[in-house]
Amino acid sequence: MTECLFCKLVDGSIPATKVYEDDKVLAFMDIMPLTKGHTLLIPKAHHASIQEMPPEEAAHLFSVAPKIARAIEDAFEPHGLNLLNNNGAPAGQSVFHFHLHFIPRYNEKDGLKVSWKTKEKEFSMDDFAEHAKEIQAKLS
Amino acid sequence: MTECLFCKLVDGSIPATKVYEDDKVLAFMDIMPLTKGHTLLIPKAHHASIQEMPPEEAAHLFSVAPKIARAIEDAFEPHGLNLLNNNGAPAGQSVFHFHLHFIPRYNEKDGLKVSWKTKEKEFSMDDFAEHAKEIQAKLS
Repeated sequence: MTECLFCKLVDGSIPATKVYEDDKVLAFMDIMPLTKGHTLLIPKAHHASIQEMPPEEAAHLFSVAPKIARAIEDAFEPHGLNLLNNNGAPAGQSVFHFHLHFIPRYNEKDGLKVSWKTKEKEFSMDDFAEHAKEIQAKLS
Repeated sequence: MTECLFCKLVDGSIPATKVYEDDKVLAFMDIMPLTKGHTLLIPKAHHASIQEMPPEEAAHLFSVAPKIARAIEDAFEPHGLNLLNNNGAPAGQSVFHFHLHFIPRYNEKDGLKVSWKTKEKEFSMDDFAEHAKEIQAKLS
């Protein structure tokens, strides 16, 4: 028996407030929402992280994202919308089944605060070129 | 002539530190990085937001995401990884051409801070059911 909370939502052993479902993905309301309309989109198959998502499943999941985003926008008329995917506990992941957060943003009473301190003074253009090379060397 | 910064990176009129490129998407180092290895993935065609992304372009873009995520992980061995997409100025968007941030997270010296204040006490299960219905009603 699975111990994964999101697998239990997929198999129906725990109820979900479903927004959208097809054979590969499930979207449902986050019951620990940051804002009104906070929605999660998950693959039905268990993959812990973006790193573990098969490309074709990632593709299907994200092909559904624009229409869910538009529906959230049409339903609640937020002032903005964040899509967020956390991989690993230090990145804020608490359920280790890939999930994409749709977080509508409002100008008031907002549960999400993103503090964005850019570090451009710590890196030179040569550093960026070196970082790009390091990533390219690992691309399969 | 385009006034969009990211379209200029795509057409080469402004140089980008490229990580990955195919006929539909471009990945490059963010020169205003939050952390070492902060990378952006964009569609080559101009779409302002996730809401405006054609499903097939969203699918292709996200099919590339797992291998870029793995390459960043292999290159820098971060402790976590956030994927973030900001839509609308109140959500933190500053360049109005869709972009997906890959933000490796380290336990120290981190430029991203996400404050996550869940609002479960403000909503009941009936509210969630109502929200789901409102979104479903707008799904095309």
